[in-house]
Amino acid sequence: MRGLIAFPITPLDNAGRVDTDAFAAILEPLLQAGVDGIGVLGSTGSYAYLDAAQRGRVIETAVAQAKGRIPVIAGVGALTQADVQHHAQKACALGADGLLLAPVSYIPLREVEVERLFVAVADGVGRPICIYNNPGTTGFDFSESLLSQLAEHPHIAALKQPAPPHDAAARHEALANHIGDRLQIGYSGDELALNALVAGARAWYSVMAGVFPGAFHQIMQAIEQADYASARSCHARMQPLWDVCRDYASYRVAHEAIRLIERAAPVMPAPLQPLSAHERESVRRALVASQLI
Amino acid sequence: MRGLIAFPITPLDNAGRVDTDAFAAILEPLLQAGVDGIGVLGSTGSYAYLDAAQRGRVIETAVAQAKGRIPVIAGVGALTQADVQHHAQKACALGADGLLLAPVSYIPLREVEVERLFVAVADGVGRPICIYNNPGTTGFDFSESLLSQLAEHPHIAALKQPAPPHDAAARHEALANHIGDRLQIGYSGDELALNALVAGARAWYSVMAGVFPGAFHQIMQAIEQADYASARSCHARMQPLWDVCRDYASYRVAHEAIRLIERAAPVMPAPLQPLSAHERESVRRALVASQLI
Repeated sequence: MRGLIAFPITPLDNAGRVDTDAFAAILEPLLQAGVDGIGVLGSTGSYAYLDAAQRGRVIETAVAQAKGRIPVIAGVGALTQADVQHHAQKACALGADGLLLAPVSYIPLREVEVERLFVAVADGVGRPICIYNNPGTTGFDFSESLLSQLAEHPHIAALKQPAPPHDAAARHEALANHIGDRLQIGYSGDELALNALVAGARAWYSVMAGVFPGAFHQIMQAIEQADYASARSCHARMQPLWDVCRDYASYRVAHEAIRLIERAAPVMPAPLQPLSAHERESVRRALVASQLI
Repeated sequence: MRGLIAFPITPLDNAGRVDTDAFAAILEPLLQAGVDGIGVLGSTGSYAYLDAAQRGRVIETAVAQAKGRIPVIAGVGALTQADVQHHAQKACALGADGLLLAPVSYIPLREVEVERLFVAVADGVGRPICIYNNPGTTGFDFSESLLSQLAEHPHIAALKQPAPPHDAAARHEALANHIGDRLQIGYSGDELALNALVAGARAWYSVMAGVFPGAFHQIMQAIEQADYASARSCHARMQPLWDVCRDYASYRVAHEAIRLIERAAPVMPAPLQPLSAHERESVRRALVASQLI
């Protein structure tokens, strides 16, 4: 779980079925562009909306398409521990190389509850687990002491969290000093992750790399070659994209972008609605201005 | 949807099965105490954690126990519109007298999405719907203009929202002037609802009335008789209860209280864990100090 990990959408049709042909057409360009991993069933991959059968089809398709060339990491979050454990076992059986787990909740969870959930899931699988710390969605923020404790488990291997909006380098370094020898630390947030990556973070969990893998691969390569000026310049060029993602949510923008570049015609699960004609035009202009289409 | 509406827990066993005998034992005291309605499958009733079959058993049990004496209102929220519509139709078929719907989300919803969801559900059912505005959980706050628009629908009849922590009377009166002729406005929040009720709100959606209906019925009667001094005095006596609810979440406290008074031995769905022995003792002391046990 290092390098550029792209989180593609899951293309659903009007009836909520996973369009596996369209999904293969979304995945193959990621492999061709040289991303380091594919994260299926992330937030952008609609995991929260999908049942076990739908999730199974997503993982099967991704594993078949990757053919072992790069790892496939599967999101296994759910409200109940029973569902999480079922999803985790099934993901392993279908060939996922790693699991991504967020402490999804309705009643916000307490530290002891999250700790037991992660240990129970990690005990039951033979694949590395990435802790998905996403306080904005889950209402739970992992403390350093909990991360430290979970890192002792042989199957808990990595941490994905939103890049901090301020002091990203200093905050990444402090966290890395504390747990970086035991957990691979990576960041989500296409706009904000750059500073943490420049400061040495191991992984970029990127939504828009699931649509435009080439541009993100170029930035990641520049970072790995310590050519930070090029990385910053390529990244800054996409400011119009970051702006529409903030306005409409990157989930909606990723679905619209996949439609625009004609890789699929995905339908977001209702009650989510397509962007209006005016908003779609804003997305198109942002992608043109970002030199992505 | 007026008066005191009690929101009991759903007693689950270790295997996640709804214990219908225990549920009947929880419901009958509510009927005996004279509450005006029963809200099953609210947040406290674990709706978010339950599938269609479990929800069906809850509604069947409540309808059978109520025997038409007071209305049974059923929560029908879910992440996808397809699930919401399925739950709504099933709740009506099983005899629920009204539906409670929150705009549950993973990707936070936009106004147009919430509007279409509510209209689609309301079009498909012949029972009154109560809008459940719960921004803390859903990430969506209903604007007055959206409430006003939804109130035009013949099946959208009521609004349940958390009582505001400040200026409850003034805020209730402003809202009531705007939409009070078309939506019955009621409040949740056992501690904070009092001021809004004194200011004329029509309904109290209460978690702890699902455990201690007598004490809450007494307060509601005092309010209806304009004996606000008695209402405030009874309510203030329960300050120790409000305190533990703030510390541990009223969901956990309600489960522990039901266990303490030996009405059932409910198991919260994992990853939720029972309170520690020390915390359980704090709940017991709070209930004693509140003169509830």
